[in-house]
Amino acid sequence: MRIANLVDRAALVVGEPGAERAVDLAIASGGRLGPALPDIYLAWDDVVAWVADRGLVNDKLGGVEVDRSALGAPSPAPRQVFAVGLNYHQHAAESGFDSPTTLPPIFTKYVSSFSGPDSEVAIPAGGNVDWEVELVVIMGREASRIDAQDAWLYVAGLTVGQDISERISQFRGAAAQFGLSKSFAGFSPQGPWLVTPDELADPDDLELGCAINGEEQQKSRTSDLIFSVAAVIAALSETVTLYPGDVIFTGTPAGVGVSHQPPRFLQPGDSLHSWVGGIGELNQTFVEDSA
Amino acid sequence: MRIANLVDRAALVVGEPGAERAVDLAIASGGRLGPALPDIYLAWDDVVAWVADRGLVNDKLGGVEVDRSALGAPSPAPRQVFAVGLNYHQHAAESGFDSPTTLPPIFTKYVSSFSGPDSEVAIPAGGNVDWEVELVVIMGREASRIDAQDAWLYVAGLTVGQDISERISQFRGAAAQFGLSKSFAGFSPQGPWLVTPDELADPDDLELGCAINGEEQQKSRTSDLIFSVAAVIAALSETVTLYPGDVIFTGTPAGVGVSHQPPRFLQPGDSLHSWVGGIGELNQTFVEDSA
Repeated sequence: MRIANLVDRAALVVGEPGAERAVDLAIASGGRLGPALPDIYLAWDDVVAWVADRGLVNDKLGGVEVDRSALGAPSPAPRQVFAVGLNYHQHAAESGFDSPTTLPPIFTKYVSSFSGPDSEVAIPAGGNVDWEVELVVIMGREASRIDAQDAWLYVAGLTVGQDISERISQFRGAAAQFGLSKSFAGFSPQGPWLVTPDELADPDDLELGCAINGEEQQKSRTSDLIFSVAAVIAALSETVTLYPGDVIFTGTPAGVGVSHQPPRFLQPGDSLHSWVGGIGELNQTFVEDSA
Repeated sequence: MRIANLVDRAALVVGEPGAERAVDLAIASGGRLGPALPDIYLAWDDVVAWVADRGLVNDKLGGVEVDRSALGAPSPAPRQVFAVGLNYHQHAAESGFDSPTTLPPIFTKYVSSFSGPDSEVAIPAGGNVDWEVELVVIMGREASRIDAQDAWLYVAGLTVGQDISERISQFRGAAAQFGLSKSFAGFSPQGPWLVTPDELADPDDLELGCAINGEEQQKSRTSDLIFSVAAVIAALSETVTLYPGDVIFTGTPAGVGVSHQPPRFLQPGDSLHSWVGGIGELNQTFVEDSA
């Protein structure tokens, strides 16, 4: 099953890649499900059962052609957003750290930075703006102190995320300014839709990568995560309660711009294409900050 | 004006200290305001105008006696939570840092750690649990790229917060684990209510402090903040959009347990009393984690 945020309404995505159509869940269900995305996660088990009962994943309804410019982040109003700092060995190394043996640093990306999959992003004046493609997890059930072996049961699905980062503000102070430097407007594009784990041959082994103006920058597999999706969820749930709709950015692989020799950052006019295999892609175009 | 969260309904607080009474805003307004706290912040200007029109601050209604055990955090479901890391000179010094000259590190406290003003807090097994009394700001208007001189216009009010912190998980890794170590269940008590700035002789000069079992641990004034309330809001608004109901923990003064020689941490049976002058107090009792 795939669920998209289409003009702030939950939509079931049906059809083949490149010819996706969207079915409004509130209308199709006679008002039982949705219409807003947060409602979908709060009633996730009902959504899964309702769609399965009707065989809608295999599409008996028509739907409308998906207009990617109308897509928002699949979970646009999470109660909590988690992002994992150093979760691929080669990215830890390029960042000058040993690979973490306990849970890596967890920071947040503030929701005012969220956007849909296709967007323009303003480069803050004087900023060094960098890319970090990531697999993003969206929770479907409340989770507290759960075991890693059960963690996937609490997941609604997966989507593609970019943890866009401004490196000057990140490293200016005595301690790294993680959350804020990664939360300028448009710095957290996500989408194009949520994909449930059952749609993927192996949700723990997905290719992910990104390219600038067609030139590959990052390419890895989520099987290289130091802390797997399940391990991250279990570790977070030792401290906090995870809520339906909560968003987890799982970390980025090697290949970010600040680790280039010399460093490379995004410039006005650059286009950034990011993808996770089996899920979909993001497209960001960078522009000068006109404010 | 004072607004409390009474069993998840917005209540106007009237009456003298020690004899406060609560007036349900939804009932008093015939359903125009509330009932939930997030609704109040989304309609903050209406709330202020409605209360002022009726002179309710000076109390013509009866209300019910405030049961402190039924109070929740004044903004229990913010879209964003900000906490300032090193924002008093002497606390920066006791933590081994120079006073910041740019915005100090900003982290989040996850909302699953929120509670009302009077609570029991479980000490995580093996944890070194520390205290940090703070002035907490709750936003009343959306704010993006605003000047410090205008910042107070965007504030709904102030309340008392404790940024309770577990120091082992905070400092275990290569980078400090700010947000998570400060987000165990019950680690973010707030209250007893929001107080609007006009109720305070000088909202930029409030005494705050805390005591353990009656023994004073922290005592300072918010006039000693390195970055004032207005400066923090303006600086945050340069990066993110602040939303009504957003919560800002403004930083703690000197006197935390980890800086004692030898360090001191909270033990089962300890009671922690925290206050901000003109606003109110928090009372936490610490217990063993029985899970």
